[in-house]
Amino acid sequence: MHLSELETPSVIIDLDRLEANILRLQNYLSHYGIANRPHVKTHKIPAIAHLQINAGAVGITCQKLGEAEVMAEAGIKDIFLPYNLIGAAKLERLMNLARQVRMSVTADSEIIVRGLSAAVQGAGLTLPVLVECDTGAKRCGVQSPEAAAELARLIARSPGLHFGGFMTYPNSEQLDPFMRAAKHRLAEQGLTVECVSGGGTPQMWQAHTHRELTEHRAGMYLYGDRYTLRSGAMALADCSFRVRATVVSRPTPDMLSLEGHGLITEYPEAQIYSLSEEHGHVDISRCASKPEVGEAVMIIPNHCCVVTNLANEVVGVRRGEVEVIWPVAARGQVQ
Amino acid sequence: MHLSELETPSVIIDLDRLEANILRLQNYLSHYGIANRPHVKTHKIPAIAHLQINAGAVGITCQKLGEAEVMAEAGIKDIFLPYNLIGAAKLERLMNLARQVRMSVTADSEIIVRGLSAAVQGAGLTLPVLVECDTGAKRCGVQSPEAAAELARLIARSPGLHFGGFMTYPNSEQLDPFMRAAKHRLAEQGLTVECVSGGGTPQMWQAHTHRELTEHRAGMYLYGDRYTLRSGAMALADCSFRVRATVVSRPTPDMLSLEGHGLITEYPEAQIYSLSEEHGHVDISRCASKPEVGEAVMIIPNHCCVVTNLANEVVGVRRGEVEVIWPVAARGQVQ
Repeated sequence: MHLSELETPSVIIDLDRLEANILRLQNYLSHYGIANRPHVKTHKIPAIAHLQINAGAVGITCQKLGEAEVMAEAGIKDIFLPYNLIGAAKLERLMNLARQVRMSVTADSEIIVRGLSAAVQGAGLTLPVLVECDTGAKRCGVQSPEAAAELARLIARSPGLHFGGFMTYPNSEQLDPFMRAAKHRLAEQGLTVECVSGGGTPQMWQAHTHRELTEHRAGMYLYGDRYTLRSGAMALADCSFRVRATVVSRPTPDMLSLEGHGLITEYPEAQIYSLSEEHGHVDISRCASKPEVGEAVMIIPNHCCVVTNLANEVVGVRRGEVEVIWPVAARGQVQ
Repeated sequence: MHLSELETPSVIIDLDRLEANILRLQNYLSHYGIANRPHVKTHKIPAIAHLQINAGAVGITCQKLGEAEVMAEAGIKDIFLPYNLIGAAKLERLMNLARQVRMSVTADSEIIVRGLSAAVQGAGLTLPVLVECDTGAKRCGVQSPEAAAELARLIARSPGLHFGGFMTYPNSEQLDPFMRAAKHRLAEQGLTVECVSGGGTPQMWQAHTHRELTEHRAGMYLYGDRYTLRSGAMALADCSFRVRATVVSRPTPDMLSLEGHGLITEYPEAQIYSLSEEHGHVDISRCASKPEVGEAVMIIPNHCCVVTNLANEVVGVRRGEVEVIWPVAARGQVQ
């Protein structure tokens, strides 16, 4: 079946580009001796995680227990979950995962470390825990190298826990000085830092410039979106991810409504100026030729990860022909 | 089980408030002789659609064929789909629905009307089609009463189609003059307008002030959210819909991260200033007492419909006790 026969809207993955993107980042990171641990939140599809592992990734990154459970069930053996897990139910699920695969997690406060240690002791396991460090993103993470070193020491002496290194997101100019200072403090006490894990697709081709970085986590690199395009890390020809949508209304000569949102590849002058749940509203006044009602267009969305989470399945195509339909198996895992 | 024992994040529906909201709008519209056709995109749950029908709704509104298919399968008998349906696959699905239940749809251009007529003739059915009118929202819809009357006449003379009236969204000051002018034009040709369908939750308590309105479509009225609160159509005590989320990080004294987004009911001074996919970032500098890591809070989101579409299930509680867990059966129907 050709993709033009698909009902719209559909999420379309170009498989040649997908595979090329996976290989290119793997080759780059391998060349510099940086471990590749892709973030699967972007695709949420076990078959694609296996493509990444087979290409050379050391493991994957998940952002939720529900995602990790789907990936473990599908045979992925090494999962990093950089999220503060708290509460009896979540810790029990983490222990169940840690019995099946190599799990590692993060913490940015004492309360998280104490909860993890108690759970691990009850389960008779050893769990690597990395310290999440805020190197400028102002989201989660300890705020200084001193605090990072202090939490690392707490992890190292907590029964059942293994200090697994430092984690931050995204890679920034502060990464190296922060990590060097934290490592220096720990070295004085004989504690080594086995991993400094950073991440980000916009920052991926500069990963080798961070001397302290030993591992990189990127998610969007295999699909690409407008955000990635704007960052300069990927070109339009690299983008493997599109939404195919149909023009359903053209109420005025310069205005139309379609299913979807983002960059309309066939009409790059068109401006999607607003979105409601089932319509994208587009100003086509600057388009020399204008799309008609019933016409299908291909859209590169602003942010591919959130599109993935809205789709129950995606369609893999090669040179326009449908090759595979993948259920987005780990989508909708709110917990 | 008490709701405090639920794993977070969870979507919580207060059943007493839900039922009260359903009854209140029904009683109001019934009092003024306005048909109630609630929009189920807000909840996407067949059991709630049945509550609305049992309370007196004439039918429901769906925004996608996939939603309508789930609702028809669950025994709802009258479904309005105010969307321009186009393409062979969608029209075939519409005909399958029209064989099972009373379906009605909209059109805002000749190409949509011609497609519907061809499909209906092939299926040997009669389909009511309403003309979608733009009364100021600048989304879809014909742009003038003259264009509305012209498209109505095309529908009336198209084989297999029945002119079902006019539809607009949301109710505005232009509704009455627009509809009066369009009706006047049609009356000259002996064509009557059996239904003027308007909609909107913020506008619901003014429905009776629109003399031309015969039917109202509201969706969010049964849940409520920050958008509805800001409009003044509902009070905080009416809101039946909350996300229960846990504070997972407090990197600085005035900043914290939690699962979720919206108005934190326990800390109304807190400001959710940014969102990433798995974290809400909150400025708590203005809170007299500040939430701690591990604490669970109840959040009223900005827009309940989009939360529904992200959740695989919602939890119905009564006076804090879990009474029912509803799968969001019609979520994720992208087509």
